Amino acid sequence: MNGAELMVQTAAAAGIEVCFTNPGTTELPLVEAFDTVEGVRPVLGLFEGCCAGAADGYARLTDKPAMTLFHLGPGFSNAIANLHNARRARSPVLNIIGDHATWHQDADAPLTMDINALARTVSGWTRTGASIEALSRDTAQAIAAAREGCVATLIMPHDIQWSEISHQVIHRVEQAATLVDVDLIKHAANLLRQSEAAVMVLGGRALRQEGLKTAARIQNKTGCALLSETFPAHMARGAGLPAIERIPYAPTAALNLLSQYDSIVLAGAKAPVAFFGYRNGPSRLLTADQKSVDLEMMGSTHIQISLESLADALDAPQSSKIGGNASTRIIRPKPQSGSLTPKKIGAVIAALQPENAIVVEEAVTSGVGYYGVTSAVPPFSLLTLTGGAIGQGMPCAVGAAMACPDRPVIDFQADGSAMYTLQALWMQAREGLNITTLICANQRYRILEAGIAQTGNLSPGVYTRSLTDLSNPSIDWVDLSKGMGVPAVSVETVEELTRHLGKSLNEPGPFLIEMRLG
Amino acid sequence: MNGAELMVQTAAAAGIEVCFTNPGTTELPLVEAFDTVEGVRPVLGLFEGCCAGAADGYARLTDKPAMTLFHLGPGFSNAIANLHNARRARSPVLNIIGDHATWHQDADAPLTMDINALARTVSGWTRTGASIEALSRDTAQAIAAAREGCVATLIMPHDIQWSEISHQVIHRVEQAATLVDVDLIKHAANLLRQSEAAVMVLGGRALRQEGLKTAARIQNKTGCALLSETFPAHMARGAGLPAIERIPYAPTAALNLLSQYDSIVLAGAKAPVAFFGYRNGPSRLLTADQKSVDLEMMGSTHIQISLESLADALDAPQSSKIGGNASTRIIRPKPQSGSLTPKKIGAVIAALQPENAIVVEEAVTSGVGYYGVTSAVPPFSLLTLTGGAIGQGMPCAVGAAMACPDRPVIDFQADGSAMYTLQALWMQAREGLNITTLICANQRYRILEAGIAQTGNLSPGVYTRSLTDLSNPSIDWVDLSKGMGVPAVSVETVEELTRHLGKSLNEPGPFLIEMRLG
Repeated sequence: MNGAELMVQTAAAAGIEVCFTNPGTTELPLVEAFDTVEGVRPVLGLFEGCCAGAADGYARLTDKPAMTLFHLGPGFSNAIANLHNARRARSPVLNIIGDHATWHQDADAPLTMDINALARTVSGWTRTGASIEALSRDTAQAIAAAREGCVATLIMPHDIQWSEISHQVIHRVEQAATLVDVDLIKHAANLLRQSEAAVMVLGGRALRQEGLKTAARIQNKTGCALLSETFPAHMARGAGLPAIERIPYAPTAALNLLSQYDSIVLAGAKAPVAFFGYRNGPSRLLTADQKSVDLEMMGSTHIQISLESLADALDAPQSSKIGGNASTRIIRPKPQSGSLTPKKIGAVIAALQPENAIVVEEAVTSGVGYYGVTSAVPPFSLLTLTGGAIGQGMPCAVGAAMACPDRPVIDFQADGSAMYTLQALWMQAREGLNITTLICANQRYRILEAGIAQTGNLSPGVYTRSLTDLSNPSIDWVDLSKGMGVPAVSVETVEELTRHLGKSLNEPGPFLIEMRLG
Repeated sequence: MNGAELMVQTAAAAGIEVCFTNPGTTELPLVEAFDTVEGVRPVLGLFEGCCAGAADGYARLTDKPAMTLFHLGPGFSNAIANLHNARRARSPVLNIIGDHATWHQDADAPLTMDINALARTVSGWTRTGASIEALSRDTAQAIAAAREGCVATLIMPHDIQWSEISHQVIHRVEQAATLVDVDLIKHAANLLRQSEAAVMVLGGRALRQEGLKTAARIQNKTGCALLSETFPAHMARGAGLPAIERIPYAPTAALNLLSQYDSIVLAGAKAPVAFFGYRNGPSRLLTADQKSVDLEMMGSTHIQISLESLADALDAPQSSKIGGNASTRIIRPKPQSGSLTPKKIGAVIAALQPENAIVVEEAVTSGVGYYGVTSAVPPFSLLTLTGGAIGQGMPCAVGAAMACPDRPVIDFQADGSAMYTLQALWMQAREGLNITTLICANQRYRILEAGIAQTGNLSPGVYTRSLTDLSNPSIDWVDLSKGMGVPAVSVETVEELTRHLGKSLNEPGPFLIEMRLG
């Protein structure tokens, strides 16, 4: 057995099933190991950013790591933006990077880079494999770290992959112990009991069905408000679940909302901060006179246990009644008609999305109308842009569809962002994934136009306008999609969108709808 | 005047004319400054890797930096692969990265990353702007560093961009002094005189017309051989110039070639090393008993002065006679006919390329036949993949065409590599650039297939084969190209290719030809 086989076998033994990859020469022993060792299926992507986004999407649905395999520093660098999103989503991801043979590294060959420095910018765990003897242990430790909700990166020199070992031991990945910090729970319970205006800010895995239901128990008992972090990695939403408001993206609006509360319990969410620091704007969104407690001090992957401990400490009854404004009845918006607007698009999606759908939302400014009309649609999973690195939606949809082949995936997607990682369409076609991509073709970076107007510049100059304009030439998403094997149509009205989306959701395989916005 | 305007004015005063960018909110003051300060024209790219590749291409033709402008860590990370190629090409590039406002950085907002760590992996000069007072000096120093042949990265916090300054001074960029190391030149001259089998390995700017002619003087005087580094950033080639062999990519072949020489003069090239370290293969390609001297100790941008000093020290006559095997007569290969092969494609290009063409070659395995048949075609510039980070060709062509609007650009391009940065086609259409893209559509990563065969695996398994196969689904480059506004055709024979390439070279604007290879 060689090092590559030992690595893959350790990963397979730890339950890793898929590897998103674009390999090169220094990864060839690992490529071949997928054939000689059973258990891990490699999936080719034509750009590393697509592989990383797919691994993130897969992790958000399964809570377990996919493996990625990248070619030295340059290959890995292409994955960084979406690994940054994965890091902010606290998605478990196991990156393997092939490096030059140990004895070739100081020759500074053309592809040589400081891979360690690159890896550390997005990884909670980074190591360079030092020997074949340590390789199975290194792999198991990387997977254990990833499972705790981080990007873990193991750099494997080429010669360690091809070296042979005769007495190999496959290291197992141990389950991390879950400890409940009783004092912290007590402290949070007291805060909720004593406060006049308390809010629980949910984030990460606390936004799943179980988390929301436990939060509703706490809400029913204490009367606290519930909010979600602004960009959830994977939120369960719809009828039968508490309808939870997201902290607004605009810092002033967020500050106004949060200032209503004297006490904050953070459950899987970080203390809220402004997305950007504007002139005269705030940075942190909680003030010193607000009391807060962070349940996550026990670790992001254990937040459900913390929530349940908190509910129990409050003697909150196990109730079938769900919290606050939740609806048990299915309510879908009624689509309007005529030419498309962002709001109308949101209503069409909410009107048609099937129960158990996975909706990846990277619609940016075109997404504004959607969230508000989905609180009582049939239950679904909502995945959003956690780290702000655009180009996340299309590959994230790939990973989500591979994780849940029986669930329909809708990718609600801004055109500017989609252009970053359009190669993901090829993966969708190759794997026959059940994804409907909805491109909001407004042909501009609308968020930048808004940002410019916000600074008081109401008649931007020629260059400024050119840098937010995608209309020259106009991007034809039908051509782009067909060019990568995904059938596509272009629509201009609510009626056309309704017809094609309905059809796509009833058919297997990928489909793309370009929605022309005026 | 605000900080953004001060920065742009300093850049314009230093001769910077173009900025390739995909900006975001934290760069908006800089975006607006392109309108309020004259001199720098911003060019939008839909993916940062395309902007970086364009800056590299521009630098290779002009020897001066373009500016880039990127959005925080995630935006910059998308540029790293092509900045790595620029670094290996020793191209002058000035990166400006917007960062969060200084007072917002420790809030760890979603887009926050360790930008410094990312920047240092590709930059010879990195600094974070600390104050508006230092900003013009910082900018001038960055440009001065870039001009010496490196990627220089200046990180500009958002609040420094929008701050106002009343008594600004625009710092000028000083010309670096050129010192000739007389002892080094003497040493090199002696080595060439005394050696029985000497070779001069040319690289970087020594491969330009002037450098090659000076090298030919030295060759005529001393009888030394001339070689080029394997992947030239910008080589002048064709009739009237010494026909110079490139050190082979395969390390064994390279070692065999280099072992013929007892003395090596490095002129703008690094001491040759293996591209990859294979099992039982070499790392460094020069041995301890070979004598070598590196003329570049005086700096890569001054190599022409070193070469001339060396020629003078050798009393090499200024002769009209060019070296060795050079032809003054134009010789073009005669195209064959029928279905396309890499060799036949190379012959068609060499047969048709106009005088003064710029040929960007990222054809990888499909490029094999081309170089050898171009030694006596009308003089042209050849740009290759310096750092091995694929996805360089299409954006490099953008930058080359912008630098030299009067020269036709041919991008000879592998399909797998082209998929990495296909968004560059949109820039080609938007700017109306005179670029003909030739896609070698073999629908596979042939270089990996060769690598697998080379290790003795002659019947690779299902997964291994799947990871080198791009045929399922087949990529339709005509659709992709049209989708981004570049007209395109698909060809299968030499005759069709000849007709369409000839037509494209006679018409302005971009055109793409997909060449289907069996």
